[in-house]
Amino acid sequence: MSAYKVGIVSGGSFGTSMAISIAETAETNNIFKNQVSILLNKEFYNSVSLVDLINKDKENKKYLPNVKIPDNVVATINKDEVEDWDIVIFATPHEYFIKVCEEIRVKKGALLISLTKGFVDTNLTTPCTFLRKKYNEKVFSFMGANIASDIANKTFSQSTVGYDEDGKKEVACIILPLFSRHIAVSMVNDVVGVELCGALKNIVAVVYGIAEGLELGPNILSSIFNEGIRETRLLLKENNRCPDLIFESCGIQDIFVTCLAGRNKKCGIMIAKEKKLGNFTSQGIGTCLELYKYLVKINSHLNYPIVCRLYDILTKKDLDLKKAIFDIFLR
Amino acid sequence: MSAYKVGIVSGGSFGTSMAISIAETAETNNIFKNQVSILLNKEFYNSVSLVDLINKDKENKKYLPNVKIPDNVVATINKDEVEDWDIVIFATPHEYFIKVCEEIRVKKGALLISLTKGFVDTNLTTPCTFLRKKYNEKVFSFMGANIASDIANKTFSQSTVGYDEDGKKEVACIILPLFSRHIAVSMVNDVVGVELCGALKNIVAVVYGIAEGLELGPNILSSIFNEGIRETRLLLKENNRCPDLIFESCGIQDIFVTCLAGRNKKCGIMIAKEKKLGNFTSQGIGTCLELYKYLVKINSHLNYPIVCRLYDILTKKDLDLKKAIFDIFLR
Repeated sequence: MSAYKVGIVSGGSFGTSMAISIAETAETNNIFKNQVSILLNKEFYNSVSLVDLINKDKENKKYLPNVKIPDNVVATINKDEVEDWDIVIFATPHEYFIKVCEEIRVKKGALLISLTKGFVDTNLTTPCTFLRKKYNEKVFSFMGANIASDIANKTFSQSTVGYDEDGKKEVACIILPLFSRHIAVSMVNDVVGVELCGALKNIVAVVYGIAEGLELGPNILSSIFNEGIRETRLLLKENNRCPDLIFESCGIQDIFVTCLAGRNKKCGIMIAKEKKLGNFTSQGIGTCLELYKYLVKINSHLNYPIVCRLYDILTKKDLDLKKAIFDIFLR
Repeated sequence: MSAYKVGIVSGGSFGTSMAISIAETAETNNIFKNQVSILLNKEFYNSVSLVDLINKDKENKKYLPNVKIPDNVVATINKDEVEDWDIVIFATPHEYFIKVCEEIRVKKGALLISLTKGFVDTNLTTPCTFLRKKYNEKVFSFMGANIASDIANKTFSQSTVGYDEDGKKEVACIILPLFSRHIAVSMVNDVVGVELCGALKNIVAVVYGIAEGLELGPNILSSIFNEGIRETRLLLKENNRCPDLIFESCGIQDIFVTCLAGRNKKCGIMIAKEKKLGNFTSQGIGTCLELYKYLVKINSHLNYPIVCRLYDILTKKDLDLKKAIFDIFLR
């Protein structure tokens, strides 16, 4: 068996940090080809192309500044290269997911791993469900309690890989060895459940950030956090997933780290400070709009006050933010 | 039926903040006598007695500075007064719990509520178990995701009351109305389970604080948090309690708020910065020493790496703190 060629679709902060982590494994392990690829859009940072920044300067100044990229990570803008990859890792933000997939083909028998959080439409279609349908290959979800810079800096981190029965063998023999020894990975037999956790945590973190920005104090922050756990468990249950998935790294732990230090929490703080969305967007905002519409459709939105109140904040003008936060708990 | 007289044993920050909160209820509600008492030791702050500070200046400058105490909170050092109280709330730190109880008698039929976190010996005897045995009255545990200053400042807060079957009627009719409308209280039929949660969260928070003080980054902090949840659930299970108690305010939510802003977390930060315990102690430290000895006795300590590593940190000289933290996850 020849070594697996690994590549990552999209070079944002999470995609780049995973490339750095996987490059370390690839270099020391003959299961994988030494070179790890990243597929980028034609993008520029201070008039220099991002591909050149990664390939020549060995740094992704735009999305993951101040982190050295190893020599065996190679960036490309050639979408046809993806067809040579045996393992295709998707790190594209959910709002561009379908568009990006429309432009790439994958090799027959490729393993597809999604790091993308959120839904690709308002029917609660997860990235992995979409990938499976489009490419008819084995899919895996990878989520966890990870801040990109910590992964890139090789801090100890934990993550969860979701697999379905048909990928059971591959997850143990190929997917697990893929991640560096700095990432402790647990496996669960539920691709979509892992993705549901990953989607909701960003919504919780935006609301948490709003409360933090309003300086409402630790007690109310803890209430938002706990309500976020309740809504995540409910979403799992309503989608016939095991609610105990919440105890994996993709569950409570990921809500925690995202509320502590993630981009979505920072977006919430900005909303509170500037009383509007501003230029700073986040995955949690798009995910909230999608999830809210779905929940209304199945008539379950009243069971998700965090999702509803964030939807109000995002769509209603002149809303009293503080009141919206307290309304989460007044049912 | 005449109105219930309410008093609090010990006037630390949590006892004082609860007195302030309950005083508001007592003033607007004819179930309770208007005056709420706090029993203090003979204590001084800048040479002024704490009793005078509370009764005359209406401020507990030593333990809860900058918070106005309502006129209907009255401090006393007379232990005999406790025998007049219909509801006795214990807010004494666990290490003085037995000693304080030895000096007070309670009225026959009094309802006893413990806010104390930790164990009163190394047999895992909880404060409520001790109270029940000593006084043979109905006992309740009150724990929750509460930072004292937030309660005193009437921020929205959540808490859990644990009751046993014989106190079922009282919890609904007397205990729940006792707490101010700023505190949303849930009830669970398990006095000791609630106390086990309250004990372990302080241990977790000290370790969390050490990791924060060492600047180990958000991913490892989230791992400590998640492991804390696992050990709490295990302690509940091993003591024949329902592990789903973790979803109440006394569970994950209280671990969260304590890691975010509590005294135990601050103690952990100090340990990390000064590489020793120093003058700053916390409930989590005493609780760790008690719990560790118990776990060794029942030969289950290896299942509690947070408890074990904190015990090592507290008892072994020249231990590498960073290594001790990482060892939690290397089993």
